[in-house]
Amino acid sequence: MSSLSSMKDNQVFLAFSTYAIIVILKMMLMSFWTSYFRLTRKAFANLEDTKLVSPTEDKKLVIVNPDVERVRRCHQNDLENVIPFVLVGLLYTLTGPELSTALLHFRVFVVSRIFHTIAYVGCLPQPSRGLCFMVGVLVTFSMAWTVLSTAL
Amino acid sequence: MSSLSSMKDNQVFLAFSTYAIIVILKMMLMSFWTSYFRLTRKAFANLEDTKLVSPTEDKKLVIVNPDVERVRRCHQNDLENVIPFVLVGLLYTLTGPELSTALLHFRVFVVSRIFHTIAYVGCLPQPSRGLCFMVGVLVTFSMAWTVLSTAL
Amino acid sequence: MSSLSSMKDNQVFLAFSTYAIIVILKMMLMSFWTSYFRLTRKAFANLEDTKLVSPTEDKKLVIVNPDVERVRRCHQNDLENVIPFVLVGLLYTLTGPELSTALLHFRVFVVSRIFHTIAYVGCLPQPSRGLCFMVGVLVTFSMAWTVLSTAL
Repeated sequence: MSSLSSMKDNQVFLAFSTYAIIVILKMMLMSFWTSYFRLTRKAFANLEDTKLVSPTEDKKLVIVNPDVERVRRCHQNDLENVIPFVLVGLLYTLTGPELSTALLHFRVFVVSRIFHTIAYVGCLPQPSRGLCFMVGVLVTFSMAWTVLSTAL
Repeated sequence: MSSLSSMKDNQVFLAFSTYAIIVILKMMLMSFWTSYFRLTRKAFANLEDTKLVSPTEDKKLVIVNPDVERVRRCHQNDLENVIPFVLVGLLYTLTGPELSTALLHFRVFVVSRIFHTIAYVGCLPQPSRGLCFMVGVLVTFSMAWTVLSTAL
Repeated sequence: MSSLSSMKDNQVFLAFSTYAIIVILKMMLMSFWTSYFRLTRKAFANLEDTKLVSPTEDKKLVIVNPDVERVRRCHQNDLENVIPFVLVGLLYTLTGPELSTALLHFRVFVVSRIFHTIAYVGCLPQPSRGLCFMVGVLVTFSMAWTVLSTAL
């Protein structure tokens, strides 16, 4: 695979790799945030998990907690938006865009998702969260448009 | 990365890019459908969102609505099936399949997922939705089989 | 696309393709497991689905069942971890790692997710499931680190 040895020669691909990894790691951190809230709020989804904070399994700790659910909704929103960004972004990178244009797309997306998380978990008043969501979607749409234009 | 400049030379890759983008955009549209139903049904997941339709934050609008939940289940089913299709399809494209065989896979999948959405949100009687789901899964399985045959 | 013809020449890419397909298929099987539990436990999410086990549509079968919910949580955890593994793993493969190092990453991840599913659906006592989850996350983090080191 000739692309292997030449990954280092393609600036757009290096930039894509960096920002894709950053936003995927941000998404994965939501799992730990959920676990942290489950442990501190003592609200678990599985009976066997309650033993982590209780000497014996305790059915009363298998409850729904609003803080946990908020983090989980934020995680779900990441799944629905970050993964399409990475998939579309990979195809976009292969169309050979200008480095400056590509960097603009990648950076705006990453910043929009970080602010989205802050707005979501911090319960900031709308439309802050809605705007962050829309900016991320528009970046993905713009890259999708470029791929379709190139492919058709 | 030599593959960059030659994306335009590979018919299967161009076809994959086109259909992958179409089905990813279809999946992302479910977010807007959910938002539309949340606004018209006045059923929100977050207290701060209720201000979008109410002068002050209103706890009574933080409710579960069956129409919203149906669209969300359809979106979830897309996440569970469209993303595997794109990931497996990318590896499948790299095995160098015949263009006609590849097009058959991509087109059947995209059509099956569009009908799946119609069957789900339109509450069509079973087994219409189940069949659409199965057709999509079989396409992904067929591509996965080709990848494994090539790799092993 | 020159990488097409040479997929067979790159051992790391062949290994990645194989393990990625295995773990994606494992994830997709959770859908069928959910369907099996919905049919045998007679617990459905949609009214039209109840006709699969009842002569007429039956609202009493639109219920939440703990076995179904457990399989769905396991499926969700797969979405949150398997997809990042495949995306990060693809970028990692393109950095040109040693075959032995790459195989170690891929194999440990696949094994950790299979045991995670056994621990989750089998209700095994903690921290068995938590450890399986952590091993998978650490593999993905290690690959992400390699990509960032190469790209920066």
